[in-house]
Amino acid sequence: MALTRFSVSLDSDLVGRFDARIKADGCPTRSKALGDLVRESLVRREWREGDEVAGAIVMVYDHHKSDILRRLTAVQHDCHEVIISTQHIHLDHNNCLEILAVRGEAAIIQGIVQRIKAVKGLKHITLAAGTTGREIA
Amino acid sequence: MALTRFSVSLDSDLVGRFDARIKADGCPTRSKALGDLVRESLVRREWREGDEVAGAIVMVYDHHKSDILRRLTAVQHDCHEVIISTQHIHLDHNNCLEILAVRGEAAIIQGIVQRIKAVKGLKHITLAAGTTGREIA
Amino acid sequence: MALTRFSVSLDSDLVGRFDARIKADGCPTRSKALGDLVRESLVRREWREGDEVAGAIVMVYDHHKSDILRRLTAVQHDCHEVIISTQHIHLDHNNCLEILAVRGEAAIIQGIVQRIKAVKGLKHITLAAGTTGREIA
Amino acid sequence: MALTRFSVSLDSDLVGRFDARIKADGCPTRSKALGDLVRESLVRREWREGDEVAGAIVMVYDHHKSDILRRLTAVQHDCHEVIISTQHIHLDHNNCLEILAVRGEAAIIQGIVQRIKAVKGLKHITLAAGTTGREIA
Repeated sequence: MALTRFSVSLDSDLVGRFDARIKADGCPTRSKALGDLVRESLVRREWREGDEVAGAIVMVYDHHKSDILRRLTAVQHDCHEVIISTQHIHLDHNNCLEILAVRGEAAIIQGIVQRIKAVKGLKHITLAAGTTGREIA
Repeated sequence: MALTRFSVSLDSDLVGRFDARIKADGCPTRSKALGDLVRESLVRREWREGDEVAGAIVMVYDHHKSDILRRLTAVQHDCHEVIISTQHIHLDHNNCLEILAVRGEAAIIQGIVQRIKAVKGLKHITLAAGTTGREIA
Repeated sequence: MALTRFSVSLDSDLVGRFDARIKADGCPTRSKALGDLVRESLVRREWREGDEVAGAIVMVYDHHKSDILRRLTAVQHDCHEVIISTQHIHLDHNNCLEILAVRGEAAIIQGIVQRIKAVKGLKHITLAAGTTGREIA
Repeated sequence: MALTRFSVSLDSDLVGRFDARIKADGCPTRSKALGDLVRESLVRREWREGDEVAGAIVMVYDHHKSDILRRLTAVQHDCHEVIISTQHIHLDHNNCLEILAVRGEAAIIQGIVQRIKAVKGLKHITLAAGTTGREIA
């Protein structure tokens, strides 16, 4: 991995405030902290611009609800090119936490979330919008 | 599961617009769509008020980066009461997508995200803020 | 204004939890609370789909910074069809809070935010994404 | 204003991607773009930690709705220490866009939003979370 070294000029007060925050967060260096902000801004842009992205779809449902397992499985098979694997946790007697690892175009992943959302009996669905890391060094 | 049936009075134009949206989204009934909005508002509140919640922490990193595997494992072991299980995907030769299924107090889970964020070599981290479903019928 | 009255069936526990939240928030009725959730979901959609929207662009800057007043004025005049009026508050000797009331297509308003963001000397800019109210009864 | 000049080491690919984004956004220099990311992260933190902040509360309502003007005025007078000034736009025959410039503790401002939200007849309310600029150089 090649590093580029460059200099930055920022207001001295701003640098002081940023250093205090970095220290409070246990972040080792200014370069690490600035790099994190840059990477986050690039990942937000990947999702906005519809690039290939990766992440997780997280659902909670009561497996007793009529037909929900069959319906969720049907949607997932329709979208198998994008769903890499599934993690299932029995939260209690009734509730399941199911996490789909996904990778594909941002719009396709958001479309899967919409389709699953329409399934009757689902309690909650949310998306962790991550990255494939390929363009994020 | 007991159902409560009650009536709602809303502006007729608003109901018309909402019905159009529901139909476009493939949502089967008004009750399902209103229930989804209610559940989402309650889950947001669980996170704001620090209740017990569930969800997923999603990380992307290059496993070649010096020492990152040891550091990530160390944080995860410190927090093993909250991390239920881990799903690991080899995105390509360099990049790993790692998804931690989590359950615990909202503030503890957000603290883990902060700790992992400080690990050098991590490319991206994001949180899917879900629910245990226990209070969300 | 015509009202439509319809009935909704939701899980009894969910209704109980929602009622508790409504009461805590000082919201007068279930119809008001459900209507608010419906309206919020429709306004989010207006922004996503690029409809005509309204809102406010909120900037903070130090008016001593060289040339910033001229630059901000130039951008605003370029976009005068969308900027309805401006509110300016002298926060202290250095800092100005400037609030632009805006109305127009969602993408145009977001483009103005991007253009202003590039102006040197600006400290912060953020957008309140509201509605014209025409489609939100 | 004193400037601090320091150097940063980031992965060369990351710098290349960031430079492309900066150019596309019309941002003049890397220092400006990095400074913007730092300032945004500090303002998010001001809101999270309950510091003194500034911003705008943006409401839309139909002024014909019974009693809404009296109710909104009552809340605003209760909170007059925090509301600096108000901008009112007649969007059409029915709809008003009202923008409150606010300054005070983050929790107090969020509490005002909750109180206004409970007013019957309000169509939409949203908050632009800005800064006083005092700690953001």
